[in-house]
Amino acid sequence: MAETLIRFGIIGCADIARKVSRAITLAPNATLYAVGSRSLDKAQKFAEANGFPPHAKVYGSYEAVLDDPDVDAVYVPLPTSLHLHWAVLAAQKKKHLLLEKPVALNAAEFDKIIQACESNGVQFMDGTMWMHNPRTAKMAEFLSDTQLFGLPRSIHTCFTFNADADFLKNDIRVKPDLDALGALGDEGWYCIRAILFAANYELPKTVIALREPVLNESGVILACGGSLCWEDGKVATFHCSFLTNLTMDITAVGTKGTLHVHDFVIPFQEREASFSAASESSFDDLVTKWDKQPSTHTVKTDIPQEVHMVREFSRLVGAIKFNNGKPEKKWPTITRKTQLVLDAVKASIDRNFEPILIQE
Amino acid sequence: MAETLIRFGIIGCADIARKVSRAITLAPNATLYAVGSRSLDKAQKFAEANGFPPHAKVYGSYEAVLDDPDVDAVYVPLPTSLHLHWAVLAAQKKKHLLLEKPVALNAAEFDKIIQACESNGVQFMDGTMWMHNPRTAKMAEFLSDTQLFGLPRSIHTCFTFNADADFLKNDIRVKPDLDALGALGDEGWYCIRAILFAANYELPKTVIALREPVLNESGVILACGGSLCWEDGKVATFHCSFLTNLTMDITAVGTKGTLHVHDFVIPFQEREASFSAASESSFDDLVTKWDKQPSTHTVKTDIPQEVHMVREFSRLVGAIKFNNGKPEKKWPTITRKTQLVLDAVKASIDRNFEPILIQE
Repeated sequence: MAETLIRFGIIGCADIARKVSRAITLAPNATLYAVGSRSLDKAQKFAEANGFPPHAKVYGSYEAVLDDPDVDAVYVPLPTSLHLHWAVLAAQKKKHLLLEKPVALNAAEFDKIIQACESNGVQFMDGTMWMHNPRTAKMAEFLSDTQLFGLPRSIHTCFTFNADADFLKNDIRVKPDLDALGALGDEGWYCIRAILFAANYELPKTVIALREPVLNESGVILACGGSLCWEDGKVATFHCSFLTNLTMDITAVGTKGTLHVHDFVIPFQEREASFSAASESSFDDLVTKWDKQPSTHTVKTDIPQEVHMVREFSRLVGAIKFNNGKPEKKWPTITRKTQLVLDAVKASIDRNFEPILIQE
Repeated sequence: MAETLIRFGIIGCADIARKVSRAITLAPNATLYAVGSRSLDKAQKFAEANGFPPHAKVYGSYEAVLDDPDVDAVYVPLPTSLHLHWAVLAAQKKKHLLLEKPVALNAAEFDKIIQACESNGVQFMDGTMWMHNPRTAKMAEFLSDTQLFGLPRSIHTCFTFNADADFLKNDIRVKPDLDALGALGDEGWYCIRAILFAANYELPKTVIALREPVLNESGVILACGGSLCWEDGKVATFHCSFLTNLTMDITAVGTKGTLHVHDFVIPFQEREASFSAASESSFDDLVTKWDKQPSTHTVKTDIPQEVHMVREFSRLVGAIKFNNGKPEKKWPTITRKTQLVLDAVKASIDRNFEPILIQE
């Protein structure tokens, strides 16, 4: 059994890597195998604190992890500006790639990453964990049910949290040389992904940034929003911010139904998650109350969503490694669409809120 | 006791007048006194079907109701394009005025109505029932709590319902000569009011319509949206539509708290209504679940929200009639702000989605 486990190397000891290390430990088909940091001491401490097995390799550089022939896959939680270099190198070293979001500073960079993955036959997946929650599949079922939901017509998503003074001064997500996309790259990524999810991954025709984004003194986005329009008249808006209370919503309204979820990025609880679904809602005769109220659907799961992510990624890697499978293109395709819309929001902000045409 | 009841006349037998007739019957300080229609037969049938007392007056014209010296107040559910004429005439006849929304085709028209009310010393109130639900006062308490909610930063509201083919062909709300503002005047009114409510009635600096509104062949709005910005960086969006499932949300996000409500216009139930409030929400250490989940607050009420509205209106009328009180200016002030924003959305649509400066 042990030799069929996918062996993970982690490059960089970011906070989020703690969560993913636990997920790798909990995933039945994956194992923590190596960690590399620019400081050997830091890597050592990370391995000890995060349940790495005694035989795990601890390296004082990222490159050493990529050079270890027994590492099957790497998880890359580095700052976005380092993704292009390290993700391409990982792919060239034939490591399957689980890459934190935002995956790149722009789609052109991401295209280089995905080209490296394709030419080296490695699987790509981004670290958008909520995609893998079993609840998400149930929501997708509801959204694609033409009887219950009909066609999607308007979507609104938001993700905000109230960053403290230390974050707003020191976090990589407010630094122009590290995560230049700020709240848009961090939180907006989820908002845009959720909109695409609810739109069945159809790209919008145009994207316009909403007015009054908040930038820090280095020009990094701390809060912003966008408005998306599709060829068929479907519309969406989103809002993301480092400056307000933790909130994360998807509201998707179809011709026949409505979906609401208030914890889409990180569920309230690890082992179950809910959403609200309404279908052909109506009033009573005098319009003083509803005839049919929305219903709550709760989906239980034995393992948290990030473990589902690692398990699915490892399953795909295993299919390539053990069964001569091909990389699954669904994941990088969704990633690229998310980045394209994100780029358009940024471009619209930079161009005085002009509408930006999305070109695939 | 009976002589202290406020005597209502209703001009026009619109569907919504059934609900308000019931509310007048249920309000402890109001009584149905007269109804007028362009057809005496229609007025007679309406009075019989809607619990008018045997001594109630039934008239074959609107004017006859306004000329009846025993009518204290009139409820006007006529199409919007008739408001200016009949509301002004009612005020001139010294009738207190409960006017359906949208109150006018534009703020300039509304100013004439409110001038007539002021110069004749009559109370004005618009028919926005949810304002009077006891839940609304509880939500206002939460939103104004600087410890629990902080300052409002982003607001999103929506109100949509799926109109049937008959509505889309024949309802007054799709007719350019009757309710020319369509979904914006009907549903957008509520969305805009809810945004102003959450912004403590501070008017935005600019309003921009969102792209791709849906118009019918006569140019009446069937679906649209808007984006609002305030001087202090607060932002809001809304969406309204006759073309999607019944949905009505307020999401208000503050620096410290979040409010969600999914039945703000018409509560799910008549005798209780809920909202969700969150304060200083946070994740657990590994960011795999929430430390503190939003809580649900349920507010019970002995009488439905529309009865609260009639009771409050009648109380104000009674204070003027019996105690030499002055008209309460709070209500027309809020009404006017709502109309100003609504006008700006319309103007932005007409001007190719230009930002419109709000001028009080």
